[in-house]
Amino acid sequence: MSMRYELYYWPGIPGRGEFVRLALEDAGADYIDIVRDTHGNRGGLDAVGGGLRFENNTRAPFAPPYLRAGDIEVSHVANILQFLGPRLGLAPAGEADRLWCHGLQLTLADFVTEIHDTHHPLGPGLYYEEQRAEAECRAAVFIDARLPKFLDYFESVLAAKPEGDRWLVRDGCTTADLSLFQIMVGLDYALPNAMASQRGRIRRVRALVERVAERERLASYLASPRRMRFNKDGIFRHYPELDSTA
Amino acid sequence: MSMRYELYYWPGIPGRGEFVRLALEDAGADYIDIVRDTHGNRGGLDAVGGGLRFENNTRAPFAPPYLRAGDIEVSHVANILQFLGPRLGLAPAGEADRLWCHGLQLTLADFVTEIHDTHHPLGPGLYYEEQRAEAECRAAVFIDARLPKFLDYFESVLAAKPEGDRWLVRDGCTTADLSLFQIMVGLDYALPNAMASQRGRIRRVRALVERVAERERLASYLASPRRMRFNKDGIFRHYPELDSTA
Repeated sequence: MSMRYELYYWPGIPGRGEFVRLALEDAGADYIDIVRDTHGNRGGLDAVGGGLRFENNTRAPFAPPYLRAGDIEVSHVANILQFLGPRLGLAPAGEADRLWCHGLQLTLADFVTEIHDTHHPLGPGLYYEEQRAEAECRAAVFIDARLPKFLDYFESVLAAKPEGDRWLVRDGCTTADLSLFQIMVGLDYALPNAMASQRGRIRRVRALVERVAERERLASYLASPRRMRFNKDGIFRHYPELDSTA
Repeated sequence: MSMRYELYYWPGIPGRGEFVRLALEDAGADYIDIVRDTHGNRGGLDAVGGGLRFENNTRAPFAPPYLRAGDIEVSHVANILQFLGPRLGLAPAGEADRLWCHGLQLTLADFVTEIHDTHHPLGPGLYYEEQRAEAECRAAVFIDARLPKFLDYFESVLAAKPEGDRWLVRDGCTTADLSLFQIMVGLDYALPNAMASQRGRIRRVRALVERVAERERLASYLASPRRMRFNKDGIFRHYPELDSTA
């Protein structure tokens, strides 16, 4: 009997929830997106928030996304994907490969945090408009040093592989490839000029992004109304003043 | 035959490596701290840096700490501790509990990142002195909103537990307890005034910190010259201008 998964994440933004959705959609898994699929945003929002309160849940997570699978509840994108990977056919076999894959996933999580911090350098407690000058400074440092460092890292991971450069781990697609795809399309949206200037040095990463987009079930998801557009909330935001000049 | 672990981390700071050391020391594990135990800082530093280069290591991690155990290499504190936990008797049994423990460990990793960002809001590419005004702003927001949110969260985890409030997961010490201990003593060093004003609301967390410090092998490690002092580098730094006024 196949497991029905329940994904709990905020409405209105692709955000961190989207990394989990990509894995579920790519695998054709049976899942409910609580906010999207049950009683509209309001009821879904109550359900997401309710699971964060200790009076309802003695193991309340610190923040969404979290996933329920029968009696199991898992929080944090990398933890959720580590749990789902083997169940969805999106993880390598063997302990050493799984630890390597999870390390890549945690590096991607760190990358996401630094991308978010380009527009929130003073922390999540203030609006962008309250920290715009600091954001311009942090984004410039990010584009100059951190963006190429992260991109070069993943290009090098692919280049160094004895099994060829199609996927990050061995010769099969994993959750880490799907997450790298999401970060790349998010960055293309948020920082198009900065990303254009990086294009030449990350040929393998770009080819991987196209390879992911062409996966049959994922392509169908990406073209569907279920796929949320990036917007001015969440992780990937397009503020022209934070991007490089063209 | 017992496994000899090799820990690779930068010299001179407790930093993220210390979260791994605490687990190894608490368990009395056989391990080599590459920088500390082999041919002095210089040779150790070369070894740590060498493992980050793809020409030496086709699975180079993005950053230290990383751990080697025979043929296995693991990077990222939370991943290393997830790997070590069951081997060192510092993990719960059963998948649901391990996923919950790893989620707590990842929340602690997020807490560490936000603590680090109080003195580096514009990113790791600039010195503190280049971002001191922004650091004062970010630290104030952190002390006002994020510090109590994280501390209250761990206090609530302990308060909600049907098994009692001695440890974060079930009724035994895990790597998450050791990491929470390290964060608390680090915060007491870095932000003594802010932490003093939080004391009343986190009675259970404070008791856990004392409980960890009294563990026999850990107490012996903490009193030894192997335990590095906090200083003006790394995650936990004492800049009086970033702390609350007394």
